[in-house]
Amino acid sequence: MIAIISNLVKEERLQEIVQHIEKQGVQAHVSRGTDRTVIGIIGKFDPTLAEQLRSMKDIENVIKISKSYKLASRDFHPDNTIIKVKDVEIGGEQIVVMGGPCAVETPQQIDEIARLVKAAGGQILRGGAFKPRTGPYSFQGTGVEGLEMMAEAGKKHGLLTITEVMTPEYVDVCAEYADILQVGTRNMQNFDLLRKLGTTDRPVLLKRGFSATYDELLNAAEYILAGGNPNVMLCERGIRTFETYTRNTLDLTAIPVLQQLSHLPVIADPSHGTGRRELVETMSKASIAAGADGLIIEMHTDPDNSMTGDGVQSLFPDQFANLLVDLEKLANVLGRKFDTVKQPLG
Amino acid sequence: MIAIISNLVKEERLQEIVQHIEKQGVQAHVSRGTDRTVIGIIGKFDPTLAEQLRSMKDIENVIKISKSYKLASRDFHPDNTIIKVKDVEIGGEQIVVMGGPCAVETPQQIDEIARLVKAAGGQILRGGAFKPRTGPYSFQGTGVEGLEMMAEAGKKHGLLTITEVMTPEYVDVCAEYADILQVGTRNMQNFDLLRKLGTTDRPVLLKRGFSATYDELLNAAEYILAGGNPNVMLCERGIRTFETYTRNTLDLTAIPVLQQLSHLPVIADPSHGTGRRELVETMSKASIAAGADGLIIEMHTDPDNSMTGDGVQSLFPDQFANLLVDLEKLANVLGRKFDTVKQPLG
Amino acid sequence: MIAIISNLVKEERLQEIVQHIEKQGVQAHVSRGTDRTVIGIIGKFDPTLAEQLRSMKDIENVIKISKSYKLASRDFHPDNTIIKVKDVEIGGEQIVVMGGPCAVETPQQIDEIARLVKAAGGQILRGGAFKPRTGPYSFQGTGVEGLEMMAEAGKKHGLLTITEVMTPEYVDVCAEYADILQVGTRNMQNFDLLRKLGTTDRPVLLKRGFSATYDELLNAAEYILAGGNPNVMLCERGIRTFETYTRNTLDLTAIPVLQQLSHLPVIADPSHGTGRRELVETMSKASIAAGADGLIIEMHTDPDNSMTGDGVQSLFPDQFANLLVDLEKLANVLGRKFDTVKQPLG
Amino acid sequence: MIAIISNLVKEERLQEIVQHIEKQGVQAHVSRGTDRTVIGIIGKFDPTLAEQLRSMKDIENVIKISKSYKLASRDFHPDNTIIKVKDVEIGGEQIVVMGGPCAVETPQQIDEIARLVKAAGGQILRGGAFKPRTGPYSFQGTGVEGLEMMAEAGKKHGLLTITEVMTPEYVDVCAEYADILQVGTRNMQNFDLLRKLGTTDRPVLLKRGFSATYDELLNAAEYILAGGNPNVMLCERGIRTFETYTRNTLDLTAIPVLQQLSHLPVIADPSHGTGRRELVETMSKASIAAGADGLIIEMHTDPDNSMTGDGVQSLFPDQFANLLVDLEKLANVLGRKFDTVKQPLG
Repeated sequence: MIAIISNLVKEERLQEIVQHIEKQGVQAHVSRGTDRTVIGIIGKFDPTLAEQLRSMKDIENVIKISKSYKLASRDFHPDNTIIKVKDVEIGGEQIVVMGGPCAVETPQQIDEIARLVKAAGGQILRGGAFKPRTGPYSFQGTGVEGLEMMAEAGKKHGLLTITEVMTPEYVDVCAEYADILQVGTRNMQNFDLLRKLGTTDRPVLLKRGFSATYDELLNAAEYILAGGNPNVMLCERGIRTFETYTRNTLDLTAIPVLQQLSHLPVIADPSHGTGRRELVETMSKASIAAGADGLIIEMHTDPDNSMTGDGVQSLFPDQFANLLVDLEKLANVLGRKFDTVKQPLG
Repeated sequence: MIAIISNLVKEERLQEIVQHIEKQGVQAHVSRGTDRTVIGIIGKFDPTLAEQLRSMKDIENVIKISKSYKLASRDFHPDNTIIKVKDVEIGGEQIVVMGGPCAVETPQQIDEIARLVKAAGGQILRGGAFKPRTGPYSFQGTGVEGLEMMAEAGKKHGLLTITEVMTPEYVDVCAEYADILQVGTRNMQNFDLLRKLGTTDRPVLLKRGFSATYDELLNAAEYILAGGNPNVMLCERGIRTFETYTRNTLDLTAIPVLQQLSHLPVIADPSHGTGRRELVETMSKASIAAGADGLIIEMHTDPDNSMTGDGVQSLFPDQFANLLVDLEKLANVLGRKFDTVKQPLG
Repeated sequence: MIAIISNLVKEERLQEIVQHIEKQGVQAHVSRGTDRTVIGIIGKFDPTLAEQLRSMKDIENVIKISKSYKLASRDFHPDNTIIKVKDVEIGGEQIVVMGGPCAVETPQQIDEIARLVKAAGGQILRGGAFKPRTGPYSFQGTGVEGLEMMAEAGKKHGLLTITEVMTPEYVDVCAEYADILQVGTRNMQNFDLLRKLGTTDRPVLLKRGFSATYDELLNAAEYILAGGNPNVMLCERGIRTFETYTRNTLDLTAIPVLQQLSHLPVIADPSHGTGRRELVETMSKASIAAGADGLIIEMHTDPDNSMTGDGVQSLFPDQFANLLVDLEKLANVLGRKFDTVKQPLG
Repeated sequence: MIAIISNLVKEERLQEIVQHIEKQGVQAHVSRGTDRTVIGIIGKFDPTLAEQLRSMKDIENVIKISKSYKLASRDFHPDNTIIKVKDVEIGGEQIVVMGGPCAVETPQQIDEIARLVKAAGGQILRGGAFKPRTGPYSFQGTGVEGLEMMAEAGKKHGLLTITEVMTPEYVDVCAEYADILQVGTRNMQNFDLLRKLGTTDRPVLLKRGFSATYDELLNAAEYILAGGNPNVMLCERGIRTFETYTRNTLDLTAIPVLQQLSHLPVIADPSHGTGRRELVETMSKASIAAGADGLIIEMHTDPDNSMTGDGVQSLFPDQFANLLVDLEKLANVLGRKFDTVKQPLG
């Protein structure tokens, strides 16, 4: 960490600041430049020291040289984290595909979609039971009943399940029904939720906030890891930009950057990342080429009548199946595996 | 609401779409342009209809003409909402000032600051007991003990109190100790928290998410209003922009816009809005000139040693007192009142 | 185009507005909703009509239904534009690679790099002679001398050349030396420059402004097309976002969207798009998977000593060569061609 | 300037880097931290050194401690720059108001508006003759004829004039007719234009690019100052944000920040900054409270029929006159002057 001080500050005051810093049990190296002085701060210090120094009179700026997260960092854990959920490995050579509707609506709907996800070669069934909606008058999900419907469909068709949890008090019930818990983009910095997820044994897919930096995403993951749950996947789902043609702007550079900074698996969500069905296939391929460890894709048998209106970004079942065929070819060229047991549709 | 369709779509399919729309119990007016057709949708419709239509094949775009929020809208409630908390009115002629530290630290700290807020003419004591922090290793607040310290200080010095609540399960305890509850920027779309706040009788100060639009902020307020709590204040606290010199970019245009779209009081937060002490006074004045109904300002007796590091944006007590003198002059010129009972500091 | 009017506006005034509109020689269809009235405006109208109406009292909003650009639109020109420059086709099945240094520095530098670009299978030599620099004290390029050096190197090694032109008065001299002219991100809306480029016979690579929308980019292209030059390539080179880890955020979704809205070829620039050498290879692959018609990539034999400091994003020659091998495999899987005549390096 | 290097880099390589740095004639102070090493670089160095180092292998990051602009910096020129144009001083105690139409349309239009600007107490007549328009089919201005009309109107009514110049080759003709030259937001980084403006003796109002940082704006000003023209005013005219309700988001914090970093006068443009007439008055007051040295405001006698469509943000003459009365009261309270010779309208 370094602190920057103008050379207009008097020597006496500089010494005061140095003493204040050294009282924290660290060393302060002073380097005088032509118009500014840099104090290098060395040793093990409390994470709040930077903020404390930033508040001090006469300190112009404080720049952290080391990262504020540790457990999420590749410096700390050089090998890839591979998350094993039953027979599926996430973060290894294999690319995983999570498919399903935006919202679980009826037992028939989720059962039929589960059958189609499995048949196409997907490994995980996605579906929302608790839905975060911008306004209070929109459909808010089928709740615990939805969880039940999805668990049943997953079991019947041999798929793992993933669902979103929105508030600490529902973590336990969601964990009872689903194999993987998902944190939505609006909850990336819902710290009480992250803390609670640190205490569960379910893997967590943590979506990047739509205006969050990589550093903030990794700090959010750190909350879960620090709570004792090592199984976190990061998910790039599109950021907000000035462009209104697409719902979000999928930031695919996030994939190699997060894999460089962290050992955690990275999943891409081209459905929310674009918000337009006709872009999902192309952006799924681009995500895999960018190195994604998996994809989470919306698919619906009747998108025109989906209850959330997110049908606009849902693939039709045949598009989903064709996409997975293409992804397999791509995976081969890129040195990844995508060997799934495709089932006949009959 | 209008739906837009390319003229490449065949007449037959257009009729199908029109029938689909009219099945929802609304009227569909078709207007054919040179290259696109507009369907005007008229009547009372379900808020999810827009989303449903947006998912339909052949519909290029759906544009909502009416607002998605109702109770928060000035169309619905033409007069200003004036929130009365004990003897303080928020949203009327009077400008209110909320002052205090970022975090409640010790009984002595909060008592001394409360004394200074009151002496300077402030009406409300701010202070965080539960602190949302980017990383898990930063100081997380003094919790319920902090609430107690602040309640005591407020009572002793004749100030109302406001504190942040981060999760639904803490709403009740915060409401027990504080007069006003605050929703932080990261929780603006924590919908379970908003719903819970709709059921309390405490007024709520709702901070705008740092990348939220005006429409999203008003929809978040709608969650609280729809739950039965009419006492919501909106707070502009700075948005994230490309500028890194300041912590956030205070969007003062939000003030007249929100007052035009809504009847709810609007408070400005120049402390978080700038993140730099030397800008707080100027931006406080600009906020009042922009029409703010009040200010929430950080003040600390020893900012160099504040526990959160937010001291960098905290005014010193004398700056705070001088600012309030200036604000009074400004209020007079602008047709607002700022008559507070200033107490001698002895 | 539709105009939206509140139902609080009186019938009489509405009729006035309708008459004002119809005086422009177009039809106005009035659709009354529950709280707002929509006027659909149909016929051939002047592009400034929308702006004029938006200024009218009582008109809340004007929404353009048709696009403001025509020649750049796929509606107008359904087939892909294929730009032929000597023996290279851009926008067809073949993927093109433009490689070279940020700035042309010396005859030896550009000659050696040209040799390596050709040997690796690139078709076009890139290099800046006039450099747009944030501050006036940075290296501003080698100017016309640089153009000469690059033209010579291109000729010797059988490569086309591309260079940036920054101001209308230099268009002719740049066109004399280079095969393709490039408009930089800061000049996307330098309308005098675009107009001048409309009068030249050189193809133009138009970089997207770092905060521009797709619509603005296509309108900028329209300036060149409307001037009589049909050979425009669009270039995604990264947008500005809140992320500071990378220099820009490469928006790969731009590729399929621009190809859908327009018939013009789309080139990706992963060098400026990321600003970090270690990300260029991965993002080049992702660009091709997203459907890019070509890539423009910085390569330098001695990036540590590059004169612009952009060496940080320049590939080393062996990385460049290996990348092109990988791109060929990828192109095959994606149904594109990448058959280049690689030359032995000896 | 400091360079940051991981401690994984070997001692030998570190020494190589240090030697490379010291060959530039500067000193390198090495500070080893627990996981990273900081090299402080001290002495007078070339502005490109930072960029060069950033490109070097093994250097993780380079952070400039000093600013890249000098002449624009308050460190270099502690006193405010006061620009004198005939009898008007900009940047002193007095607040200046520039008023007029978006575009100069006819002699009658500009004459009548000039009369009203003068009568209300404005000192400077604004009006565009060359108009930067997003698309090529919009009205592009009246050109040199417009310049003539405006010069005549200014002279007749005793007003200075300001107009936008878009390209280097028009600087001379604009300087012939207008007292102050304006650089538009899209041209803030049109470096050839800035260089040319450095050679003229006309003061320049430099508008901030709609996505530019403060640092980039000051570097753009540096181009003009370095060319020999000391009379530059900075103009905050709104930045692009996610909000679409307003055309731009006026960043008023820019005013005190730019005044702190620089000695140049700062002007606010609430017309483009909001894009909505009903917000201009409030945001003009807020701009003055934020410390602006002047305002540039659009006013039109018949905004419904303005040729650019920017009428939507133009004040009516009576609004303009009333606003100036209010600004005078505000100026008095804020310690600024606004004593203008108002003329009877008869």
